[in-house]
Amino acid sequence: MVSTPALIGVDWGSTSLRAWLIGFDGALLDEAGAGQGASTIKGHAAFVAALDQVAGAWRASHPQLPLLACGMVGSAHGWLDVPYARCPAGTAALAAGLRRPDDGPYIVPGVLFDDASLPPDVMRGEETQIVGALHLQPSLRAASCVVLPGTHSKWTHVNEERIVRFATHMTGELYAVLRQHSVLGRLMPADAPADPEAFVRGVDAARDHGELGLPHQIFAARTLGITHKLPEAALADYLSGLLIGHELRAGLQWRVLAGLGAAPLALVGAPPLCARYQVALQRFGRPADLVLDNTAPHGLLALARAAGLLPLETP
Amino acid sequence: MVSTPALIGVDWGSTSLRAWLIGFDGALLDEAGAGQGASTIKGHAAFVAALDQVAGAWRASHPQLPLLACGMVGSAHGWLDVPYARCPAGTAALAAGLRRPDDGPYIVPGVLFDDASLPPDVMRGEETQIVGALHLQPSLRAASCVVLPGTHSKWTHVNEERIVRFATHMTGELYAVLRQHSVLGRLMPADAPADPEAFVRGVDAARDHGELGLPHQIFAARTLGITHKLPEAALADYLSGLLIGHELRAGLQWRVLAGLGAAPLALVGAPPLCARYQVALQRFGRPADLVLDNTAPHGLLALARAAGLLPLETP
Repeated sequence: MVSTPALIGVDWGSTSLRAWLIGFDGALLDEAGAGQGASTIKGHAAFVAALDQVAGAWRASHPQLPLLACGMVGSAHGWLDVPYARCPAGTAALAAGLRRPDDGPYIVPGVLFDDASLPPDVMRGEETQIVGALHLQPSLRAASCVVLPGTHSKWTHVNEERIVRFATHMTGELYAVLRQHSVLGRLMPADAPADPEAFVRGVDAARDHGELGLPHQIFAARTLGITHKLPEAALADYLSGLLIGHELRAGLQWRVLAGLGAAPLALVGAPPLCARYQVALQRFGRPADLVLDNTAPHGLLALARAAGLLPLETP
Repeated sequence: MVSTPALIGVDWGSTSLRAWLIGFDGALLDEAGAGQGASTIKGHAAFVAALDQVAGAWRASHPQLPLLACGMVGSAHGWLDVPYARCPAGTAALAAGLRRPDDGPYIVPGVLFDDASLPPDVMRGEETQIVGALHLQPSLRAASCVVLPGTHSKWTHVNEERIVRFATHMTGELYAVLRQHSVLGRLMPADAPADPEAFVRGVDAARDHGELGLPHQIFAARTLGITHKLPEAALADYLSGLLIGHELRAGLQWRVLAGLGAAPLALVGAPPLCARYQVALQRFGRPADLVLDNTAPHGLLALARAAGLLPLETP
């Protein structure tokens, strides 16, 4: 049986976008991508043109399909500033918060965590992946810790199908700026094969000696090189392991303090990055229970259905 | 009584240099500076020219004076690669390690800490400041923790007048790359008046909630801005406080584990930066016992004397 198209979905981040023609059953019937991230586009007409470029053909063939986008496209510097949904936020609250610019797609709100005792935290795009993960994996619904690794990793506490709390870790961006702009990058060759051993060594250093502090430990990505204890080609993976290790050190403790010690731990994201996190989690003695690839299309479909954008019954 | 010139001393870092005409009693009879840091100069002739520019007139007037330089000028990418002295390193070991390029100044070796159980650590330039601090302050000689804030802060364990162990914290460089190259800098105005309250708030966040992890906590320098809980002009000082707070959190614990809980704690460096660290140390309930401005000239003089470069007696 061929799946019937139900939705045009877009995950529209800061630096790129991915679009899908999604079937009623969640099948990806077609997909497209572009480098036109929400932070690289200015003005309504430019957003209309960028969307048309990736999804114009689908819209021409299926003019009746709703469009739903998530991510930084809904930020103050995106197409339309869609107000955040506040924690606790589940599918219903997110669906109720959809907004659309004239002639544009519906856009999913991001989520704001703000409990006054700590600085607030925000996400845009990850909430849709979490909705997709909960849709696909019933075991995550009652209580779980869903981790989305990335430039800004998110550690999410899910309770009764809602995002009740989360914490952003700027791990990927720290790695990028240290590698490209700090003294640490100077010894690192531009192209080097992956060095899984150096990665593990970095993870273990954070696990075993993290109390020495991240500002101190990262300096080893220089000193190990200049003293020839690690080949220069291994230094970038050592640094990556150290930073991910510091994220895990904090995140796993946060997870236990949140009462999620016995709840499932899931990784959601691109397989190569999830694989690195899974290795690191194993070094910490707490491997992920589930590893899910991109769940945004399922999240968009579930949100479109909850918002009443789809026909109630599959045709 | 007018002090008699004894030494031409140079603190020659990566990005700039400072030179002094130093008297037998340590008085600074004249000083000069230039932007020609060791990492910006290539080749022997260029180093000779740069030195001549700042110290040529002194050399002409006092051709008999020895020249002594410290800092990155002695690194592999400097004028001459001077081998590190290994911990424990005191004045005698450093003086024995002086090397000079033909027609160039004597150069003080950096110090290497390498005990095999942890990644190695290195300093170049700070050892001379520490020698100067010990020379000036007898209370630091038996046992002390000497902290030199900066781009690469050093926490040093001094025992029996020797550097027995130290740890570098890349705090200043982390601040610079995050401010200039990360998403955190985007909300920060280029010029903003200092905001001591925001600085303290950042320090306190590291002190009280540091276990949430630096990669997480720095994201607040964005979220506090976009939720208008801190004015944009305050975000840079908040970030600075957070990073210095993480350094102190780790450094103060390191100090106690090193058995220095009852030993004097000294800050050595530029007064404005030391003032920030002193405020942060007070927030941690452990203010510095001593705060010393630039001690490099006294260190250079002590090392020159120990190396036999000066006449044994003051003329």
